[in-house]
Amino acid sequence: RIAEMAKVTQLIDNEVFRAYVTYATIILLKMMLMSCITAYYRIRRKAFANPEDVPFGKSENAKKFLRTDTDVERVRRSHLNDLENIVPFLGIGLLYALSGPELSTALLHFRIFAGARILHTIAYLTPLPQPGRGLSWAVGYVVTFSMAYKVLKTALYL
Amino acid sequence: RIAEMAKVTQLIDNEVFRAYVTYATIILLKMMLMSCITAYYRIRRKAFANPEDVPFGKSENAKKFLRTDTDVERVRRSHLNDLENIVPFLGIGLLYALSGPELSTALLHFRIFAGARILHTIAYLTPLPQPGRGLSWAVGYVVTFSMAYKVLKTALYL
Amino acid sequence: RIAEMAKVTQLIDNEVFRAYVTYATIILLKMMLMSCITAYYRIRRKAFANPEDVPFGKSENAKKFLRTDTDVERVRRSHLNDLENIVPFLGIGLLYALSGPELSTALLHFRIFAGARILHTIAYLTPLPQPGRGLSWAVGYVVTFSMAYKVLKTALYL
Repeated sequence: RIAEMAKVTQLIDNEVFRAYVTYATIILLKMMLMSCITAYYRIRRKAFANPEDVPFGKSENAKKFLRTDTDVERVRRSHLNDLENIVPFLGIGLLYALSGPELSTALLHFRIFAGARILHTIAYLTPLPQPGRGLSWAVGYVVTFSMAYKVLKTALYL
Repeated sequence: RIAEMAKVTQLIDNEVFRAYVTYATIILLKMMLMSCITAYYRIRRKAFANPEDVPFGKSENAKKFLRTDTDVERVRRSHLNDLENIVPFLGIGLLYALSGPELSTALLHFRIFAGARILHTIAYLTPLPQPGRGLSWAVGYVVTFSMAYKVLKTALYL
Repeated sequence: RIAEMAKVTQLIDNEVFRAYVTYATIILLKMMLMSCITAYYRIRRKAFANPEDVPFGKSENAKKFLRTDTDVERVRRSHLNDLENIVPFLGIGLLYALSGPELSTALLHFRIFAGARILHTIAYLTPLPQPGRGLSWAVGYVVTFSMAYKVLKTALYL
């Protein structure tokens, strides 16, 4: 059992893998924060999706708080955009980290992606004028493509 | 090739990794079940999203079944909430399993998360009065944060 | 450090793992394409979700382009369906690849899943009459279940 454990922890000793682990965790924590921001706006704007969520008033009164709000919907779109872009990063980034890239190149990819997604959230929620949000989205997208190219070049097996 | 395979299967022989594999698979199967529940409610409530999905009537008749239904939307929100919370668990949980935690601590994390998400679905679909759903969501959220803390403590490489 | 790197790259030398890497990357790139198709339809149909995205007209004029469009919504549902089905494939498929399946069996699973999801997108966007889309969805679903069965049979640790 100790020998097995040693083999598993060898993966976590690899610097590229540790860099992936760090940035993947940071970007997932950022995504998880969106749930709290949605809850915050739902309470502040009194705009709920489920009758049982309305924290005030009787049931006949609750109905008027079952509505959509433009700011709540904005946070939700931002959250969904995170899912759509962070899922490919998690999958392709893991495979990229295992494909033996240079440490400096890998760090560059992970840092730019994490930075771009944080800027994307800021641009979406402020909101900043375009092309702020569009560019931050595109940078994360191109970084993911670049990792996918390296992965397929190293591992292609159709 | 046999030597390579031996190295790959060593990972699956590790008990913490096997526990992760088991609970990750269970919780993904639970999430996949949401697609069937959505389909069930769409047919029962005759509320479809696409004209080609309406299984009865001619095209002029089909239009009145292209509508949203509160129960269908409830299942869909529950499914999306799964995606938003299970994706971080999958990513952070995998990295956590590779960071060499105690088996008993890891099992505690995985079991509580899986239980909390199953309770969340029950609370959402019944629906149970709050704070039932809110608490089950928060428990899964805190478990994921706890794993992220261990991952960053072990592997931080910025 | 070189010894560590050798151990990491051994994983990517395994043929089953390389097949997983290839098909997971292909299917994630296909999913990423949905973002571009959504943007294309939003511009073509002049149907935007955010005021700052409207690329023409002054702000009072912009409001009339803040609307939903049936084709944009169709692409978005297709994208969300990808997320709901590709996330389980990524997670369960990775664990399946590590559970030591036969190469030919693994290739069969990965190829059928990737093909089914590509057909699903074509069926959704054309749109093809049912049960075209329903069947392609079901094939991907069953393949994921089949992998989950193998994973749990190999690694079950509750």
